[in-house]
Amino acid sequence: MTETNPVPVSVIGLGAMGSVLATALIENGHPTTVWNRSPEKADPLVEQGAARATTVTEAVQASPLVIVCVLDYKAMYELLDPLCDALAGRVLVNLTTGTPEQAREAAAWATHRTIDYLDGAIMATPPAIGRPDAFLLYSGSQSAFERHEATLKLFGDASTYFGADPGLAALYDIGLLTSMYMSFTGFLYGAALVGTADVKATAFAPYVESFLDGVVRGGMGQLAQQIDEGHYPDDASPLAMQAAGMTTFIKAFQDEGIDVEILQHIKGLTDRTVADGHTKAGLASLIEQIRTRRLVP
Amino acid sequence: MTETNPVPVSVIGLGAMGSVLATALIENGHPTTVWNRSPEKADPLVEQGAARATTVTEAVQASPLVIVCVLDYKAMYELLDPLCDALAGRVLVNLTTGTPEQAREAAAWATHRTIDYLDGAIMATPPAIGRPDAFLLYSGSQSAFERHEATLKLFGDASTYFGADPGLAALYDIGLLTSMYMSFTGFLYGAALVGTADVKATAFAPYVESFLDGVVRGGMGQLAQQIDEGHYPDDASPLAMQAAGMTTFIKAFQDEGIDVEILQHIKGLTDRTVADGHTKAGLASLIEQIRTRRLVP
Ligand SMILES: NC(=O)c1ccc[n+]([C@@H]2O[C@H](COP(=O)([O-])OP(=O)(O)OC[C@H]3O[C@@H](n4cnc5c(N)ncnc54)[C@H](OP(=O)(O)O)[C@@H]3O)[C@@H](O)[C@H]2O)c1
Ligand SMILES: NC(=O)c1ccc[n+]([C@@H]2O[C@H](COP(=O)([O-])OP(=O)(O)OC[C@H]3O[C@@H](n4cnc5c(N)ncnc54)[C@H](OP(=O)(O)O)[C@@H]3O)[C@@H](O)[C@H]2O)c1
Repeated sequence: MTETNPVPVSVIGLGAMGSVLATALIENGHPTTVWNRSPEKADPLVEQGAARATTVTEAVQASPLVIVCVLDYKAMYELLDPLCDALAGRVLVNLTTGTPEQAREAAAWATHRTIDYLDGAIMATPPAIGRPDAFLLYSGSQSAFERHEATLKLFGDASTYFGADPGLAALYDIGLLTSMYMSFTGFLYGAALVGTADVKATAFAPYVESFLDGVVRGGMGQLAQQIDEGHYPDDASPLAMQAAGMTTFIKAFQDEGIDVEILQHIKGLTDRTVADGHTKAGLASLIEQIRTRRLVP
Repeated sequence: MTETNPVPVSVIGLGAMGSVLATALIENGHPTTVWNRSPEKADPLVEQGAARATTVTEAVQASPLVIVCVLDYKAMYELLDPLCDALAGRVLVNLTTGTPEQAREAAAWATHRTIDYLDGAIMATPPAIGRPDAFLLYSGSQSAFERHEATLKLFGDASTYFGADPGLAALYDIGLLTSMYMSFTGFLYGAALVGTADVKATAFAPYVESFLDGVVRGGMGQLAQQIDEGHYPDDASPLAMQAAGMTTFIKAFQDEGIDVEILQHIKGLTDRTVADGHTKAGLASLIEQIRTRRLVP
């Protein structure tokens, strides 16, 4: 059963993110009820047409669809655990950032209370919410996602449901953000290096961008295929040769007085992979070291 | 003065890379002389039409343009330093991978011997040489680059001259490869994480690719601008909030038994940046920590 008229929605947590989510709902004609610990954050939303709830229970009881977006899971439980049966039979969409384990635990907590639980992760900053390319990741209750898909896509049309395992949204979220942080940090290292010869970061960025487009984008697909197949041949750039190249890179950063810790750790992964016998494999083989928690720090 | 007829070229070093460079020259009608320490690697090139030099001196004397592409700078000096005056007045294009400092030292070495020195870095694997998108980076003698630009672009049409500082090609090379390695490694971490829920790397890759296109590509331009301006405001995602997010990520990896060293180091950079007072700055402010060599390990 999908929605027909704009469904009433309650938003709990009106920080930078929750406020923008509520605005998107109000602007699209949803009867919207809002609650926040510091009540003044509800004021601008009430002006836009939201109803103010004075307690969390009141907020929950106002709508069949309840969205919570607070700082962390601890805050979420503080607010929702004391509610007893108020949430029973409703859909709870949790957009609070957390780990896959936290999402799975919350889903179990919700099942116990007959709450229809959908976990979400927001791959966008508040100003991007509602833009066509913004995307949110969802996992958990498929029926909840399907029933409210149109409403949930108001936040980002490219939003996707990943499956019944409630941890999937957080897994993809953290996987993607890790890729992002590593790419950004890599760019900062490169910019620091070329900066030693007074090359502007804005002069360097276009080269990195075209390198990302040309080499990294395509390379990722290849790495992915090798990871899924579980073997990693690379005749053109065997890992032992790449390890030698990394030694040169690290030397270059050291010559310029730049921090090399992170590069040394990538080299460490590479050296341990080579030591495990993957001399003629390529970069994808590093995943075997990555998968293994290092027992000795 | 630019070239008219295909200029004679000598290639010293016929490993995986040097052989492909020589082939590109032969195929484009350049009288090509080749030399390699293990002489049998010259055989296929001689069959293609190259002249075989039996000594390095003979190779150098055969052409006004000499390309050297050997394992490392140590090998290059072993071959070229004993030559005395044979290289004087010629253009030496050094495509051996090294650090910016090594390139600058080699340029000084060459100037001393009245060799016209151009340093190059190859941003391509051997099979990509000659493809329109392949690119090589050059720096050092501008006149040498301009005179032989057409020949040098046989290896990659997108090749670029970066300036008179002979270290620039290596700086850009290492800066770009660092970006690449960090992006690839980030993808491997993400793939390892989603893999714990049996998500295939090939299912994950398209999300990373579209995230790179949508968020990372644009974000880099912003980071670059802030780096050049030297201040890094970010109201939407202040660094203190990002540091809290990283704690969640690290926990997620630890929950799944995945190595977290590199993520902890990015978090370390972030924490030290926050401790330096950049609480409301964004990610670009990490460059200040990166630029500073860590004195205490
Ligand atoms: N901002 C982004 O770019 C972004 C992007 C993706 C995901 N997210 C996620 O969205 C969630 C909210 O982020 P935000 O940017 O809105 O953060 P924020 O502006 O700092 O707001 C935090 C919200 O949590 C509430 N809160 C904190 N502790 C609480 C407690 N113990 N009891 C009740 N309420 C509590 C705050 O209430 P008070 O107003 O009373 O303090 C406020 O409404 C976080 O999980 C964040 O990771 C944010
Ligand atoms: N392959 C790539 O993907 C790639 C990409 C970009 C840049 N590069 C750079 O290109 C350069 C050559 O790489 P490659 O792939 O051709 O490596 P390679 O296949 O291992 O060949 C190495 C070459 O160096 C020669 N050599 C090594 N030590 C020597 C010495 N002491 N005296 C004389 N010759 C010596 C070898 O001669 P023998 O045949 O006698 O051993 C061989 O010709 C390296 O600096 C590499 O970093 C390679």
